[in-house]
Amino acid sequence: MPIDQSILEELETVFYPDSIAIVGAPRDERKPGSLYVKGLLNAGFRGPLYLVNPSVVIVQGIQTYSSLISIPGSIDYVIVNIAKRFILDLLDECREKNVKVIQIFTAGFGESDEDGASDLEQKIVQKARSLGIRVIGPNCIGVYNPAHRVSIPWVLPREAWKPGGVAYLCQSGGNTGFFLEISVKRGIRFSKAISYGNGTDIDSPDLLEYFGADPESEIVSAYIEGITDGARFFEVLKEVSSLKPTVIWKGGLSGAGARAAGSHTASLAGSEVVWEAVLKQAGAIQVEGLEELADTILAFQTLPKLNSKRVAVISGLFGAGGGASVASCDALSRQGLEVPVLNAETIAQLKNTLPFDGSIFQNPVDVGAIATSDLVRFSKAVELVFSDQNIDMVIIHLPVKLLLCSFPVEYVDDIMEVFLKVRQTHNKPLIVLSQKLSAPIEEDLLEQKCAEAQIPTYSTVERAAKAIANVIKYQEFKADACAP
Amino acid sequence: MPIDQSILEELETVFYPDSIAIVGAPRDERKPGSLYVKGLLNAGFRGPLYLVNPSVVIVQGIQTYSSLISIPGSIDYVIVNIAKRFILDLLDECREKNVKVIQIFTAGFGESDEDGASDLEQKIVQKARSLGIRVIGPNCIGVYNPAHRVSIPWVLPREAWKPGGVAYLCQSGGNTGFFLEISVKRGIRFSKAISYGNGTDIDSPDLLEYFGADPESEIVSAYIEGITDGARFFEVLKEVSSLKPTVIWKGGLSGAGARAAGSHTASLAGSEVVWEAVLKQAGAIQVEGLEELADTILAFQTLPKLNSKRVAVISGLFGAGGGASVASCDALSRQGLEVPVLNAETIAQLKNTLPFDGSIFQNPVDVGAIATSDLVRFSKAVELVFSDQNIDMVIIHLPVKLLLCSFPVEYVDDIMEVFLKVRQTHNKPLIVLSQKLSAPIEEDLLEQKCAEAQIPTYSTVERAAKAIANVIKYQEFKADACAP
Repeated sequence: MPIDQSILEELETVFYPDSIAIVGAPRDERKPGSLYVKGLLNAGFRGPLYLVNPSVVIVQGIQTYSSLISIPGSIDYVIVNIAKRFILDLLDECREKNVKVIQIFTAGFGESDEDGASDLEQKIVQKARSLGIRVIGPNCIGVYNPAHRVSIPWVLPREAWKPGGVAYLCQSGGNTGFFLEISVKRGIRFSKAISYGNGTDIDSPDLLEYFGADPESEIVSAYIEGITDGARFFEVLKEVSSLKPTVIWKGGLSGAGARAAGSHTASLAGSEVVWEAVLKQAGAIQVEGLEELADTILAFQTLPKLNSKRVAVISGLFGAGGGASVASCDALSRQGLEVPVLNAETIAQLKNTLPFDGSIFQNPVDVGAIATSDLVRFSKAVELVFSDQNIDMVIIHLPVKLLLCSFPVEYVDDIMEVFLKVRQTHNKPLIVLSQKLSAPIEEDLLEQKCAEAQIPTYSTVERAAKAIANVIKYQEFKADACAP
Repeated sequence: MPIDQSILEELETVFYPDSIAIVGAPRDERKPGSLYVKGLLNAGFRGPLYLVNPSVVIVQGIQTYSSLISIPGSIDYVIVNIAKRFILDLLDECREKNVKVIQIFTAGFGESDEDGASDLEQKIVQKARSLGIRVIGPNCIGVYNPAHRVSIPWVLPREAWKPGGVAYLCQSGGNTGFFLEISVKRGIRFSKAISYGNGTDIDSPDLLEYFGADPESEIVSAYIEGITDGARFFEVLKEVSSLKPTVIWKGGLSGAGARAAGSHTASLAGSEVVWEAVLKQAGAIQVEGLEELADTILAFQTLPKLNSKRVAVISGLFGAGGGASVASCDALSRQGLEVPVLNAETIAQLKNTLPFDGSIFQNPVDVGAIATSDLVRFSKAVELVFSDQNIDMVIIHLPVKLLLCSFPVEYVDDIMEVFLKVRQTHNKPLIVLSQKLSAPIEEDLLEQKCAEAQIPTYSTVERAAKAIANVIKYQEFKADACAP
């Protein structure tokens, strides 16, 4: 069953609203709902932004309206931050204003144990659908679309407004905000993201289908707590995975986690064994935790040509390479990656290039501290390793703190130049291990520069190894699927 | 075979030198050897510090001597940073000055494939021993003893000079420096650490025995690449583990890692299966990687009373608790920990304390964003969870970035006050999850304050769960060993 392209039109307003009204914009800026105003102002949303608050005149410098109806302009998208008992009535106002989508931030529905809360949730969704209104949520923080300048209630960093190819659907608001924040800092660029909470109307199969069809989304990622229509979920996931790398973190796999998922997004979490089998069969890559999710997506985004397991490791810049070399081998091997012996010719040339004592001329190559202060030698050593026919990708350890002990911060640029040059010359992936210590803020500089240059950085080799292995797992799935 | 206490006297000068000479103190401050001078000056080493350099008069403001012999005072400890061909002759000078210990920074011995390098290493050690001189290394960075103000060649942060109970022996210089730096920032306090490289004279069994006997060392940790006397290693390790928690990271377990260990410290790494069995049988806790090593030691140091698996999780401070709750359950369960249901009475009281919508009154408890701006309610909720009889330890999620979005940085102190009060009232471990995002430098503040208060912080629940599980593993080993 191929992806139904009509989903793009169906959910058009979800991701591309022309005008937004926030119903229940709070005066107290410490209340969570006020972050919608902050977030959209920070994003520079281009359409009209209306605030509704019956008793306040000005919120964050914006004149409020006493009701949705009293807004003069047209509104196609409403953010709902009012007590749940008022939402059914609000829908009538939405109908009158010809609203197409509402996003319900309000919580306390099916996920709570309050009598009648689950029924109210169903009533709201049924009434909305009967009025031609689609619902995001309830119990969610909504949509982020950098190209269209739509924001979740979160003051996202500057980098968040450079669009890219990663789509993200997420049942948890926190796992949306935290994930976007840590990801954009590392150079991950998003097409769209959506926190959809209980998923009572628009649910994961709809969103997977949308991102599968969306030409702007090249990698699809998700945090899912539960699904209602398992068969459709599997069908759509299989289809999307065959088109685009699909990375899924399934929350609530443990007994306690499933109980928590029920209280969080009213989800029936399902068993661990079933989920693992389903995701594997569908060709999706399963990850555990926000860090592995970000690590893996970063690898998919920056290393699309990764298709072999033969890694070279270069360590010892600014000293201290031996232990890192040993640890790298162990961590890479544990993930099924290979750290092959270098070509004899490469070894011979490395011996002519690097100082003899304190260097290691194998793979991992320890360039020795001295080489780092001589970028000509260092550059040549890197070049030799990249040229080796036994090697398909290169990981370089770079302890920025040690660099800053001996060199001015501008030296980071010189190192970056070596990286950019070798990446331009060779068609092999480069991964940087940026071990952060207790140095001043300048430590982040290298990571920022790498993020800009789309060179992936990882804080430990264990994390890099896992991310690389996840990408290779997907390539192998694709190769198997294409085999006759 | 009980620990032989005479080892304390035997290795006294290794850890408590009265006077230090650095032979080969380089003029160029970018050369690695010059970090010995920097490190010892930064440490404020109390004894005389002499520098030897035949051709330079002043190095880092210190008058140098042209040879060891020409130094007027007595010297018991020499740091060797000269080409290896000169070391045999240097030993004669050491003998003349009555030196007791030399620490050889110079590399390029058994770990290199140079003809004769391994023989030279043996000759140096044999000659030293015959002259009554003990050797640390070669190919190592030496000793750190905060109480005695001895430093490795590394400008360690201020916190490094508060002594504590953690001993660390490490074959790798990098894994010594990096480990100390990340550890002291997190509040880990050391008795002593030693980087011993090839371990040709003083080797891991000697050092384990020393730390086993040392009254200042309460937790023993190690990074080991290889051993020569397996039987003695096992005997000593077993004895030390029975006295003190012993945490071991074995490097070179993979094929490639073993090859790298051979090139790094001339170690025969041994098979993964054998090592796992040996460490388990000896009662040592095996970890993988620097992060898990630090995470685990921090747990041993700060949570000595940890002896049960029943964890409560509190999330949702400053918003965003549901997803974190689900993920916490999964990660804790994966490590064999329990997230039990709270007492009915606790749940009832939580419902009276926290806002109804957006909170979750189970374990994990999502306190809801609103509670966080009302520390009286938050404090009461924390108190209720700590008081629950089903609960033996509490993990609190604290996203500092979100705190800083809504509150001034001083609010960190108010939160800390809640933590300190509850820790004082209850005899239950408290663990803080400090999720760092792209906030300004103030993000570190909470971690620093927790480190000072000896409340352990972890960046992810996965890391906390693993560390807690490692401590419990040791408690179980001890309980089994003591069972009739």
